[in-house]
Amino acid sequence: MTADSTDHALGPRPDDDHPFAGDPVFDLHLGGKLETVATVALTGRDDLSKAYTPGVARVCEAIAEDPVMTRHYTWVPNTVAIVTDGTAVLGLGDIGPSAAMPVMEGKAVLFKQFGGVDAVPICLATTDVEEIIETVARLAPSFGGVNLEDISAPRCFEIEDRLKERLDIPVFHDDQHGTAVVALAALQNALRLTGRDPATTRVVIQGAGAAGVAVAKILLEAGVTDLAVLDRQGVLHSSRSDLTPVKRALAEVTADRHDRRGSLADVMAGADVYLGVSGGTVPEEVVASMAPEAIIFGLANPQPEVHPDVAHRYARVVATGRSDFPNQINNVLAFPGIFRGAFDVGATAITEGMKLAAATALADLVGDDLAEDLIVPSPFDPRVGPAVSAAVAEAARRDGVATR
Amino acid sequence: MTADSTDHALGPRPDDDHPFAGDPVFDLHLGGKLETVATVALTGRDDLSKAYTPGVARVCEAIAEDPVMTRHYTWVPNTVAIVTDGTAVLGLGDIGPSAAMPVMEGKAVLFKQFGGVDAVPICLATTDVEEIIETVARLAPSFGGVNLEDISAPRCFEIEDRLKERLDIPVFHDDQHGTAVVALAALQNALRLTGRDPATTRVVIQGAGAAGVAVAKILLEAGVTDLAVLDRQGVLHSSRSDLTPVKRALAEVTADRHDRRGSLADVMAGADVYLGVSGGTVPEEVVASMAPEAIIFGLANPQPEVHPDVAHRYARVVATGRSDFPNQINNVLAFPGIFRGAFDVGATAITEGMKLAAATALADLVGDDLAEDLIVPSPFDPRVGPAVSAAVAEAARRDGVATR
Repeated sequence: MTADSTDHALGPRPDDDHPFAGDPVFDLHLGGKLETVATVALTGRDDLSKAYTPGVARVCEAIAEDPVMTRHYTWVPNTVAIVTDGTAVLGLGDIGPSAAMPVMEGKAVLFKQFGGVDAVPICLATTDVEEIIETVARLAPSFGGVNLEDISAPRCFEIEDRLKERLDIPVFHDDQHGTAVVALAALQNALRLTGRDPATTRVVIQGAGAAGVAVAKILLEAGVTDLAVLDRQGVLHSSRSDLTPVKRALAEVTADRHDRRGSLADVMAGADVYLGVSGGTVPEEVVASMAPEAIIFGLANPQPEVHPDVAHRYARVVATGRSDFPNQINNVLAFPGIFRGAFDVGATAITEGMKLAAATALADLVGDDLAEDLIVPSPFDPRVGPAVSAAVAEAARRDGVATR
Repeated sequence: MTADSTDHALGPRPDDDHPFAGDPVFDLHLGGKLETVATVALTGRDDLSKAYTPGVARVCEAIAEDPVMTRHYTWVPNTVAIVTDGTAVLGLGDIGPSAAMPVMEGKAVLFKQFGGVDAVPICLATTDVEEIIETVARLAPSFGGVNLEDISAPRCFEIEDRLKERLDIPVFHDDQHGTAVVALAALQNALRLTGRDPATTRVVIQGAGAAGVAVAKILLEAGVTDLAVLDRQGVLHSSRSDLTPVKRALAEVTADRHDRRGSLADVMAGADVYLGVSGGTVPEEVVASMAPEAIIFGLANPQPEVHPDVAHRYARVVATGRSDFPNQINNVLAFPGIFRGAFDVGATAITEGMKLAAATALADLVGDDLAEDLIVPSPFDPRVGPAVSAAVAEAARRDGVATR
């Protein structure tokens, strides 16, 4: 019956004369980068009565009786909320929730393309810690996981910690842990390449925000012991009186141990590894003071803390966050596979073990191709998602957070 | 380059031995009914640098400078949040947010198929009025509109009213207004068919919940004057001492005017129209007491208040909410086109004028085919979405809520 066809294609109207028409980046963003699509076809009343009333009522009742049915009959277990308050977006800072949306949509695209994970951007009109926590907790029945994004430090630490405690689904602040996982993978390969042992390698991390703190923690877990983390005032050390609780706790397990203190120049002299997540710059003479065969990761975007041209004068292995240089340390190598793996086993959390497993899987993918200009795989390497997700799922089982 | 391909298809694993395998309804719901899909292709680093860092930063900055840019470069203006607390789901009642999800996913599918509107189900883990309002207000930057769904009365009235006041995007409680729009469309055609004038037609509405209140209001706006609304205790009349503020206000503009009071049997005697949205039943002798050529809409699902077999003994025009009888009063005729029309003109609200325009557009679509068993079009009639959205967009302009 023609009356039962649905060939009308309603949708947003063309917007060809948009304000930045002709600019390739804005042209690509026209109308946004994401849509919702049905996975079932409704071609007539019979379909409608199954997918909607009255048929759907039986599915609702089955879930009301046994919440585990959510796993089978809804999109929830494969869907992540990408939650931001817009306070720390890229290098742009506090630009607010509306202006953060293009990044969150981009992230949703990457979640799907590289992890087969459905993702919904949620940009919140509040920057209050309690309100963000309450809001995400109220949203939780709708999602299988929460990816916190671009929330400024130190609020991001408390928000993540308390949500992890409160919810029985994975909560993951990507600016911390995505960066940490990929940085660790790259560092493992750089150490291998330069014949270093993590336990005797001297590492300097410039930047004590979300990424810096998380990178420091994962390096400690991976066996690094001589680690100095710096904020703008210098090395985090317990002798300082200006440290936040998060920084003080970090000082105690990093610079305090080898009593490294002072300025960047003080700790860079003789250091094996520099890892920049600060957005600052390192004077060339300070770079020059590092140990032979140094490793330099300048991860700030778009301007690395040490430009690769300068870094290469003194270091053997150089990485950045940029796609136009070799060795791009990019979170997209981690978060899609991490959530894929967590969802595959119905993980109730993302553990330290799962993150370490993701990093090792990434590092191992490089294999025999390991070289100064190839310490991490390409995001477009089709092996990345499957390898990371398999390692993460296995670690979830090992850590006892898998539910299937 | 093969390393730049993305032909790995990661996603949820097959779930063939699910608990209700073999049941067609559950088979259809397997894995949920919805997914997020990218509208841009990322085939290599160049695409990645446009859709994500560093390119996306310029789009974020453009929005930070001028929020109107959200309209061009994000999915927000075409995306609706379907928000529920799971307290009044179908006829199932308060089954909670998780069990409500299959209905919300179904709704999202209908929004896309019949309106080209992207829709995200949001099932909230709170039933507190203040918390729901706060939560939705915080989510608002992420969405172009809010469809409230299956929230029990009387909380739904306050939630909708206060969100409408607070937000500058359309807020629409579909159980109220979707039902009201389609019921009005059907009634307009039924009155035409039986040669009645709204101003002199006696109408009885059984049910004073979300749908009953909204149907009563839209009928008043459409020119009905002799209207009695009943809850379980009888006709809403100011002489009653047990009325909520919403019911008292409604009594004053309905039964008070013709001083109709008492029981269902009292007001049904001689009534022209019975409209049931209660889930109750009407004794056959009460049905028999109606005026000649009566109109009976029994909209409860799955059991109409008056079974069509009984209704046809006494009435000329009979409608239900069911798809297996003629004249299905189904919200899907309204909400996709209403949001499509609102989004097409960037409407800041959905006005009474827009709802009336939607009803008239629906009624007019039946045209010369008008007959006792054809007073509303089929949901699968491809003219429905375009006709409703065009009428709604025009009304939005007329009412001064269009922004483009």
